[in-house]
Amino acid sequence: MSRQTFELLILGSSSASPTSERNPSAQLLNIAERFFLIDCGEATQIQLRRFKAKFQAIDHIFISHLHGDHFFGLPGLLSSMHLLGRKQELTIYGPKELKEVIDKINQVSETTLNYPVKWVFTSNQGLQLLFEDDKVEVFSFPLKHRIFCTGFLFREKPLSRKIDKYKLEKLNVSIADILLLKNGQDVVNNDGILVKNSEATLDPPPPRSYAYCSDTIYRPETTLFVAGVDLLYHETTFLDDQLDRAKKTYHTTARQASEIAKAANVKTLLIGHFSARYNDLNMFLDEAKPGFANCLLATDGKKIKI
Amino acid sequence: MSRQTFELLILGSSSASPTSERNPSAQLLNIAERFFLIDCGEATQIQLRRFKAKFQAIDHIFISHLHGDHFFGLPGLLSSMHLLGRKQELTIYGPKELKEVIDKINQVSETTLNYPVKWVFTSNQGLQLLFEDDKVEVFSFPLKHRIFCTGFLFREKPLSRKIDKYKLEKLNVSIADILLLKNGQDVVNNDGILVKNSEATLDPPPPRSYAYCSDTIYRPETTLFVAGVDLLYHETTFLDDQLDRAKKTYHTTARQASEIAKAANVKTLLIGHFSARYNDLNMFLDEAKPGFANCLLATDGKKIKI
Repeated sequence: MSRQTFELLILGSSSASPTSERNPSAQLLNIAERFFLIDCGEATQIQLRRFKAKFQAIDHIFISHLHGDHFFGLPGLLSSMHLLGRKQELTIYGPKELKEVIDKINQVSETTLNYPVKWVFTSNQGLQLLFEDDKVEVFSFPLKHRIFCTGFLFREKPLSRKIDKYKLEKLNVSIADILLLKNGQDVVNNDGILVKNSEATLDPPPPRSYAYCSDTIYRPETTLFVAGVDLLYHETTFLDDQLDRAKKTYHTTARQASEIAKAANVKTLLIGHFSARYNDLNMFLDEAKPGFANCLLATDGKKIKI
Repeated sequence: MSRQTFELLILGSSSASPTSERNPSAQLLNIAERFFLIDCGEATQIQLRRFKAKFQAIDHIFISHLHGDHFFGLPGLLSSMHLLGRKQELTIYGPKELKEVIDKINQVSETTLNYPVKWVFTSNQGLQLLFEDDKVEVFSFPLKHRIFCTGFLFREKPLSRKIDKYKLEKLNVSIADILLLKNGQDVVNNDGILVKNSEATLDPPPPRSYAYCSDTIYRPETTLFVAGVDLLYHETTFLDDQLDRAKKTYHTTARQASEIAKAANVKTLLIGHFSARYNDLNMFLDEAKPGFANCLLATDGKKIKI
């Protein structure tokens, strides 16, 4: 049996100003057919169409902060969901002032959405559980930007233990026992004999995780929240030649992001939120790879399986 | 000498929901190098880049009403103008609640634009002069939609009379006299002889005009405001098979728009704001042309010289 889906689609990879190649920030994460939209820059709904993502399947939207390149696409997406007949609840996670903006827009346009919107406000108090179900949990954690900003951590729940098919026939256990074995318990089989869990099961693959860090100044404390993740997205608005500018505007350079990835011992580093001043993104890889070799560029339309 | 520019660029031609082919409403009108942006649906700044329009040259933005497909691109455009170093004043003409939305967004994003924004609020009291300089005048006029909405009328100022070059040499007039002749006055020439204006000048071409009507229910009174214009843009969200829906949602069908164009005796009718339900836009022409033959489709990227 193949593992459940854990796939990221990059919808936008530009920083504040879009370019002809790069839309502002947005990503769509699919974990076990839960679709999480992460940030929603202008024209995200157009990118969703362009890359053939079903946007009515999105039930959870996470907004990191209230600079326009991270949320100016939200009003249009909410409106299109409404016009195209959405009925099911949508939950939006983000700074509390985001609700004020959306309320104001709905007020002036005299719009009442046809579906319920639930709001969960982020805080900057360490790791905050925003969502969980039987398969996934999502947390926010603080970043340091010019205005209030959080990152997001998406994690699979620990998977059930795997039944060792080769041993199963000999063990003579009931179907109810199989479920108990998957949960890690020992059972007594149909012959009254104790079957130890370790005899019948194999370790499941470790839960996978994805961390999203945009926008933020370089900050070693970030490693605490993203330690060991399979995929770390970290903003790299600038190269090191603009280090002063990065500090002044509370952004990160490619070299600095590679240091975070190395210190946090992540598996793969994904970089994005590139300033419009850079045309050749290979310069970002050239700067990051000496510090952390397993580094990918976030470019619009790229899919990454974790 | 060629006439001053009077050219319209369609940036978006869709109604509420964008399609893969059609962005929401936005148009760029160039009259004598004054650049007027008319409505600003989501991703208008991307369309401006795509069609290679210099968006910093836009000093006047006209918003017809506050449904999202007509203004959700404004916050991003204002932000990009700011980030790309704009200093010169921008004037925004629209419903007064639009300022409340922009103020709210600037407040939550802690943004102070680097350039002054002047606001001119539209009213629904007949023809309202919004802007004029030596070459152009712009008016709003009421439309009838679900929420407050105005159309816009753009008109060249009457042009100077044309000097008849063939007669000029014989008339022996000074340069100062030529300016007076252009203004329609008679002059006394260098020989002390009266030169009648009609002897020295020709009629200038008549001033050109463009009227923009979106969004509105079919309303015969509209003809009063758009009578005789060279180009009339009228929304045609639906075809006549959806007449009931058009009435209910305060929109217009292609047949109805052709009736307005005919009654107003305009030169050319341009139709747009097509519902996403229609893929084949030729159906709109088929329905409009029997009533008004000189009819064009607004499609993204189309340029129309008036």
